[in-house]
Amino acid sequence: MHPIVSVVHILIERESCFMAAISGDDNASNAVTLQSLGEFAVIDRLKDIAKLGSREISIPDPVVGSGDDSAIVAFGSAHVAMSVDLFVQDRHFRTDWSTGVDIGRRCAAASMSDICAMGVEPSTLLVGVAAPPETTMSWITEMYSGLVEEAAIAGARVVGGDLSSAIAIMISVTALGQAPKKGAVTRSGARVGDVVAVHGALGRAAAGLRVLQRGLRSPRSLVDSYRFPHVDYTAGVRARDAGAHAMIDVSDGLVADLRHIADASVVTINIDKGLLMVPEDLTSAAAAFGLDPLTWVLEGGDDHAIIATFPVAATLPAGFHAIGVVNERGEHGVTVDQAIFEGSGGYSHFHQ
Amino acid sequence: MHPIVSVVHILIERESCFMAAISGDDNASNAVTLQSLGEFAVIDRLKDIAKLGSREISIPDPVVGSGDDSAIVAFGSAHVAMSVDLFVQDRHFRTDWSTGVDIGRRCAAASMSDICAMGVEPSTLLVGVAAPPETTMSWITEMYSGLVEEAAIAGARVVGGDLSSAIAIMISVTALGQAPKKGAVTRSGARVGDVVAVHGALGRAAAGLRVLQRGLRSPRSLVDSYRFPHVDYTAGVRARDAGAHAMIDVSDGLVADLRHIADASVVTINIDKGLLMVPEDLTSAAAAFGLDPLTWVLEGGDDHAIIATFPVAATLPAGFHAIGVVNERGEHGVTVDQAIFEGSGGYSHFHQ
Repeated sequence: MHPIVSVVHILIERESCFMAAISGDDNASNAVTLQSLGEFAVIDRLKDIAKLGSREISIPDPVVGSGDDSAIVAFGSAHVAMSVDLFVQDRHFRTDWSTGVDIGRRCAAASMSDICAMGVEPSTLLVGVAAPPETTMSWITEMYSGLVEEAAIAGARVVGGDLSSAIAIMISVTALGQAPKKGAVTRSGARVGDVVAVHGALGRAAAGLRVLQRGLRSPRSLVDSYRFPHVDYTAGVRARDAGAHAMIDVSDGLVADLRHIADASVVTINIDKGLLMVPEDLTSAAAAFGLDPLTWVLEGGDDHAIIATFPVAATLPAGFHAIGVVNERGEHGVTVDQAIFEGSGGYSHFHQ
Repeated sequence: MHPIVSVVHILIERESCFMAAISGDDNASNAVTLQSLGEFAVIDRLKDIAKLGSREISIPDPVVGSGDDSAIVAFGSAHVAMSVDLFVQDRHFRTDWSTGVDIGRRCAAASMSDICAMGVEPSTLLVGVAAPPETTMSWITEMYSGLVEEAAIAGARVVGGDLSSAIAIMISVTALGQAPKKGAVTRSGARVGDVVAVHGALGRAAAGLRVLQRGLRSPRSLVDSYRFPHVDYTAGVRARDAGAHAMIDVSDGLVADLRHIADASVVTINIDKGLLMVPEDLTSAAAAFGLDPLTWVLEGGDDHAIIATFPVAATLPAGFHAIGVVNERGEHGVTVDQAIFEGSGGYSHFHQ
């Protein structure tokens, strides 16, 4: 038992200064909402709180703390990678666009992908489900079966969970896997000169979502890509074994997630547009919508491709292909064909 | 990578039989809702799905699987206890009855209590937060600070999390702690002749909730007990060291949670009413409402007291006092003064 670490008063005080600083108004604390700050600023604040609150804890710091795809914590001699993801009805999925099985598979895949992006194989899931009382047991059975089935593909098992009522469906998936003592790959290891390579599809889930948003059900190949990602759960381990310096999975969008690597590694990453693969169905769908398919490829999330940076002498592992290089840090974290990227770069909660 | 374990079709088939069996109607699958089945029947179904889906996974079974307060999984030579809990606005908390700090503390306490009830000290939390975009940053800061502060009391730190938008606030807390190689205390070890003992308050949170539901703000002592539980995070370890055979934390209600021990251990637990402590404020509040205070003590959840069964020769650890004994399994899992208990025994989601 530890003495109470009274962080709350300190935090409330800091919060007031913070509020005043960003709003220019001492009484504005109620006006600052999650929406006005945006997802990443809120996350930064919460990380500060956790750090401040833990400063007197006697156990060792985590091996990798908040801010990477997964945290890594030592339990005795074992290093365990762990990550939690929330999936909220009408934010992350719609029950009229996806079957229960699809939704379960997507939740498991997205969560386990965070473990893979550390170069670790997921082995264990905990699953919390909140749902309205009128939800049918057959939907819950399908969703949970999809989740368990996707876990099995990765060689992982669901060992526990929680169930609650709620006004909308929310699913919490915690994924864990044993990390090698040395060699878990973080976001912060990219070095100038590294080759940036990708494994898996980009922009397909975003294109499929656009198709559904337009009330269409085809092209089927894109809608299928939206239903759930097809993750190769060994790609991250292969990248680690090939000597990857930094790695992340593409959940928000290629540019947005490369920015995370660039910021954590204090480098600039340049994407070579000519190296991006744009499959035929993506090109035709984009033409039909009057869009540039590269927007989907550069900004679309939810495909859970893996991007990693490798020493230039490394042989890229199977399934990876080069899309850019790591440069000295410039003004921007990511450039495309050496120019500023003008798009949003990807998805952010609270700013839509 | 494992071959796809195609559990879904098997499950859908089983589900149809199951639906037909309970509804007497082959076309009734849409009629069976979470509400009509109730929380514990749904959980049993989900556990079956997880078990069926994991049957071909090559990694070892968890040391303790679904159905206890926490699962315990081996990572190399380390055994790790882990548990997830969901907290949903207007189900588990109301923002007009509790401050953000209170809610954060309650979420952390309830989740860590599940680790303690295995005889393990929690060390690590992952926290997912879903909230409406108009939620103020000051509320989120308070809630998260409360959570981090309660974690610090237990010597645990928040190492990661997730943030999402949603139509109502939902908080997911995953708690972890390193379990001793032998000696984690499950629900299934109670033996005939054991003494049943409790550590901590019973019925106080339920009484405080009733006060608030009536639109009152006093007695303050009970409202305070509702705000967040005061958990002694070392009580579970002390019980383990004293040789406890079985243990659980009281989250649903004393009778409901003792039933979990009784069913898992295939015994009947008798509670001696005369041994239950009923503090003065509970007695007066019950009198004011025309209620029996023992209803709160026997059925009230959310206090997160620890109940354990000990060999009769054991010296009860500090803070524990005897409230009953373990008998041979009879018709009912729990009796009160050797008679059938007629109340609900505690809280169940979807049946209210």
